[in-house]
Amino acid sequence: MSIFKPIEEDEATGKVKEVFNDIKKVRKLESVPNFWKYIANDPETLDRTWKSMQQVMKKGALDEITKELIYVAVSVSNGCEYCIKSHSLAAMKKGATNEMLSEMIAVTGMANEANRLVEGYQVEIDEKFK
Amino acid sequence: MSIFKPIEEDEATGKVKEVFNDIKKVRKLESVPNFWKYIANDPETLDRTWKSMQQVMKKGALDEITKELIYVAVSVSNGCEYCIKSHSLAAMKKGATNEMLSEMIAVTGMANEANRLVEGYQVEIDEKFK
Amino acid sequence: MSIFKPIEEDEATGKVKEVFNDIKKVRKLESVPNFWKYIANDPETLDRTWKSMQQVMKKGALDEITKELIYVAVSVSNGCEYCIKSHSLAAMKKGATNEMLSEMIAVTGMANEANRLVEGYQVEIDEKFK
Amino acid sequence: MSIFKPIEEDEATGKVKEVFNDIKKVRKLESVPNFWKYIANDPETLDRTWKSMQQVMKKGALDEITKELIYVAVSVSNGCEYCIKSHSLAAMKKGATNEMLSEMIAVTGMANEANRLVEGYQVEIDEKFK
Amino acid sequence: MSIFKPIEEDEATGKVKEVFNDIKKVRKLESVPNFWKYIANDPETLDRTWKSMQQVMKKGALDEITKELIYVAVSVSNGCEYCIKSHSLAAMKKGATNEMLSEMIAVTGMANEANRLVEGYQVEIDEKFK
Amino acid sequence: MSIFKPIEEDEATGKVKEVFNDIKKVRKLESVPNFWKYIANDPETLDRTWKSMQQVMKKGALDEITKELIYVAVSVSNGCEYCIKSHSLAAMKKGATNEMLSEMIAVTGMANEANRLVEGYQVEIDEKFK
Repeated sequence: MSIFKPIEEDEATGKVKEVFNDIKKVRKLESVPNFWKYIANDPETLDRTWKSMQQVMKKGALDEITKELIYVAVSVSNGCEYCIKSHSLAAMKKGATNEMLSEMIAVTGMANEANRLVEGYQVEIDEKFK
Repeated sequence: MSIFKPIEEDEATGKVKEVFNDIKKVRKLESVPNFWKYIANDPETLDRTWKSMQQVMKKGALDEITKELIYVAVSVSNGCEYCIKSHSLAAMKKGATNEMLSEMIAVTGMANEANRLVEGYQVEIDEKFK
Repeated sequence: MSIFKPIEEDEATGKVKEVFNDIKKVRKLESVPNFWKYIANDPETLDRTWKSMQQVMKKGALDEITKELIYVAVSVSNGCEYCIKSHSLAAMKKGATNEMLSEMIAVTGMANEANRLVEGYQVEIDEKFK
Repeated sequence: MSIFKPIEEDEATGKVKEVFNDIKKVRKLESVPNFWKYIANDPETLDRTWKSMQQVMKKGALDEITKELIYVAVSVSNGCEYCIKSHSLAAMKKGATNEMLSEMIAVTGMANEANRLVEGYQVEIDEKFK
Repeated sequence: MSIFKPIEEDEATGKVKEVFNDIKKVRKLESVPNFWKYIANDPETLDRTWKSMQQVMKKGALDEITKELIYVAVSVSNGCEYCIKSHSLAAMKKGATNEMLSEMIAVTGMANEANRLVEGYQVEIDEKFK
Repeated sequence: MSIFKPIEEDEATGKVKEVFNDIKKVRKLESVPNFWKYIANDPETLDRTWKSMQQVMKKGALDEITKELIYVAVSVSNGCEYCIKSHSLAAMKKGATNEMLSEMIAVTGMANEANRLVEGYQVEIDEKFK
């Protein structure tokens, strides 16, 4: 159990209530996910993170599925279970298939391996990269 | 300077020479990048990594650019300078634009931040994720 | 379940018993926390870690609350659940408020994000830092 | 060398120019540090990060020096050289002494060590933490 | 619960069945461990990982126990609970004692601490290492 | 360049001088490596780290070469260049061959990859491990 208490929807007031309502509306959810209820302990962080998340994850030069897959790849690399589960589901909701998730995991594994081969052998930067 | 010596192309024999030639042919390169020359100190690792890299990074449910971007996102998360540079260039060679790389970096930053908000607040898994 | 068995207080003898008693006395605890019971499998590590922990975490140029907050920030960054919980509680016992913990988490998130923006853009060191 | 080009001050226009001017004014700097010049490749990230950084790092329940020390502790844990240097200097500019930085590093080292003792021994959460 | 379903032995066909049988034969196991059943969602990754794991972990210049201990040390550093448990058990099955595991954990802790002292003090490379 | 100044041997006094002399005697070195000269900014950390390092790295259930290899594996995983170089050289000085170092790197890469496959697929702990 966390040492923090989540802010439940019926306890939310002011800025927190506003962000909670916005999350449900924008994400078309019936209830606010735990992530937002916990960080609501710090209303400024709630507000900032919600705005940043929307800006960063919106369709741009990369589509939303690709962004979710990159998000999960990083979370896998960091071993954040909650983030892996919630964003894998978000990716699937946006259309990612099991095959896409599997390939993302394979690339994440490969990169983690190769990163350490580079460090272990202390590979010098190629002249052409300088 | 590395405590390992890279295996130069004119020193390569047997399996190492074979893989070196294959890398240049498949990747259409005039010379073998340092990564492969260093891990050639261990011919089994060279051969295995070259085969694995091709299998994992080939077009599948995800296209090659997306895979390179995921690869860079992981390398950024791990702070592996050589891997960031070489695979950012590989992504661009395959068609990734500056905007795509910038958005990948933004998602990588955001995921790294949110992962720690989750850990810090010890967010409990939502009932619906269980 | 761990593959190691914790050394219970009534099993402790010699150096382990001595350290256990010291932990309870210094920390004003009625029982020894699991961390110390598990690392007691290696009495040298128990003794060394207990002495080091006291030396490092004692009031110095930084007060004890600040040190606990830094300790938690690192544990959050590494995703060590036990360490986050136990040292968040230790910080609160020493006087840290929810607001202080929340701000520490926000800084930890921000630093993790900015670290990756730096790596992703391969930011060169400013002349004045050299 | 980075594969990205920093946006120099005399090239900055619109939103980027505005943020650059704000950074110099708020931080009382004669020139914009490289971090901001590189992330200016993505004006949205520049603007968002500058606003977030100010919100997160401002005096609150924790003073500014403590926040900078936490920031450096995380950067040390992640091995981000640029971030370590620039925020160690920022901490000193705000009044942190060599002793404070040294103690922060000692705590960061200790936490990193103890985190792994916990993982290695797979320490179970104490009943009282649940 | 994972969002992926493990491939059970009685569901396995083709390449997956073949690898499952090989795992049980080579490792002298009565059932396939979960790791292999989950990654079997991606038959290419299953096959590649099984072959790589055998090649990398086989007795060479280093004996099998040493390799398992290195594997666990890395997993401890990354905080991967499943990997720590399964490979600690694998190490013990191959002859590692509690003392050996404990010393491996102590070294892992020490290296993690010293790595951060180096980063925090930004230790310059000694002339003789260049 | 570091923002800390190394304590040179001719500047060392008291406890620092004592530890410096002990390092040179025990390690049979003509000069003190930079690591120790930098952490000497904090004499307590210097003294504690030197004692801990000797205790942890001494021959026990594991021999000294194995301990150095584990140390390097962790440093490779964390990407600490100074630590990789200095402890790879220490391992070689104690008798480690290029083959041993190469196999250690291969295991480190493999573990880093497999750790992420486990996280990505959110592999459930096997009944028999519980």
